[in-house]
Amino acid sequence: MPLVNVHVLRGRTAEQLDALLDAVHDAQVEAFGVPETDRYQLVSQHEPGEIRALDTGLGHPRSKDLVVLHFVSRRRTREQKVKLYELLAAHLRDRLGISGDDLIVTITENEDTDWSFGAGRAQFLTGELS
Amino acid sequence: MPLVNVHVLRGRTAEQLDALLDAVHDAQVEAFGVPETDRYQLVSQHEPGEIRALDTGLGHPRSKDLVVLHFVSRRRTREQKVKLYELLAAHLRDRLGISGDDLIVTITENEDTDWSFGAGRAQFLTGELS
Amino acid sequence: MPLVNVHVLRGRTAEQLDALLDAVHDAQVEAFGVPETDRYQLVSQHEPGEIRALDTGLGHPRSKDLVVLHFVSRRRTREQKVKLYELLAAHLRDRLGISGDDLIVTITENEDTDWSFGAGRAQFLTGELS
Repeated sequence: MPLVNVHVLRGRTAEQLDALLDAVHDAQVEAFGVPETDRYQLVSQHEPGEIRALDTGLGHPRSKDLVVLHFVSRRRTREQKVKLYELLAAHLRDRLGISGDDLIVTITENEDTDWSFGAGRAQFLTGELS
Repeated sequence: MPLVNVHVLRGRTAEQLDALLDAVHDAQVEAFGVPETDRYQLVSQHEPGEIRALDTGLGHPRSKDLVVLHFVSRRRTREQKVKLYELLAAHLRDRLGISGDDLIVTITENEDTDWSFGAGRAQFLTGELS
Repeated sequence: MPLVNVHVLRGRTAEQLDALLDAVHDAQVEAFGVPETDRYQLVSQHEPGEIRALDTGLGHPRSKDLVVLHFVSRRRTREQKVKLYELLAAHLRDRLGISGDDLIVTITENEDTDWSFGAGRAQFLTGELS
């Protein structure tokens, strides 16, 4: 947890996709303070006609590098979220040369009851996770 | 914002998909009163075996035209949501000949802290968006 | 309702995918007490490089059988959710031989206003559904 839905345009090499997922994961671990093994990422690679991303007038031209991230997570503080966005932008820029113009992030929060990580158990309720 | 996940069966032409996304966007702009540039749409095209859509006994036979929409949005009023559903059905019918039987919509709400539209900034918090 | 996003690795036969979707649906019907026709499932089949699933240190080795489920649902009780996880694990194991190690589930809740099942109507508000 979180579960991260990663939407990109098709065209990256396997190595580039690996590096992207690593960068996203590292930002999350640092911002949310979750364990390194708290990694659940699902990638959807789209054809150009399958994504429309404008900018609400903010002045972010989008390119083929576009990365749209949808996190499903337990509650996080405002500070944790702001840090997540900053670290995502920094890691994507520094490691992969992806402009902040190409990064869109949204978060949906849920509760301890809403997760099972294996064996049909709700590990936040059983006490296996806290 | 919103971020709209659009699920359809594979088989539409590029022009048909464009028209569908335009219809969805126009309904959203009118119902939610968001800017024209508030456009974030992700399409997943499925094989027939990848979608199961019944009707909870409501009497909506589904066809190959089926459109399933999942909106992730800041809070909207009941009136805005009802208007969204009505406009979606109207636009899909009038512009594309898609029956209301083939339209399924759900919304997940989140908060101002849950969005970054570029540059690693939370624009609803910084005041860049309101 | 719920809407179930089913993420798997590509490689199952049509019959195996059918059986998986049936098992998921039956668990939901039993755990949530919804009608048999309350079935809305969307499958995404991923390439190996498109999924990263570790285990938060819980000791669940993941295999090519991995199933990640994201339910979008009206409010459910803690008991209903715990039952859902248990039944999902049981049905996948008993019917398909899928280990509980390969089952990850998360739930996002929304409200009566957040659903339209056809015809642009909000059936939980109109009274067509209760």
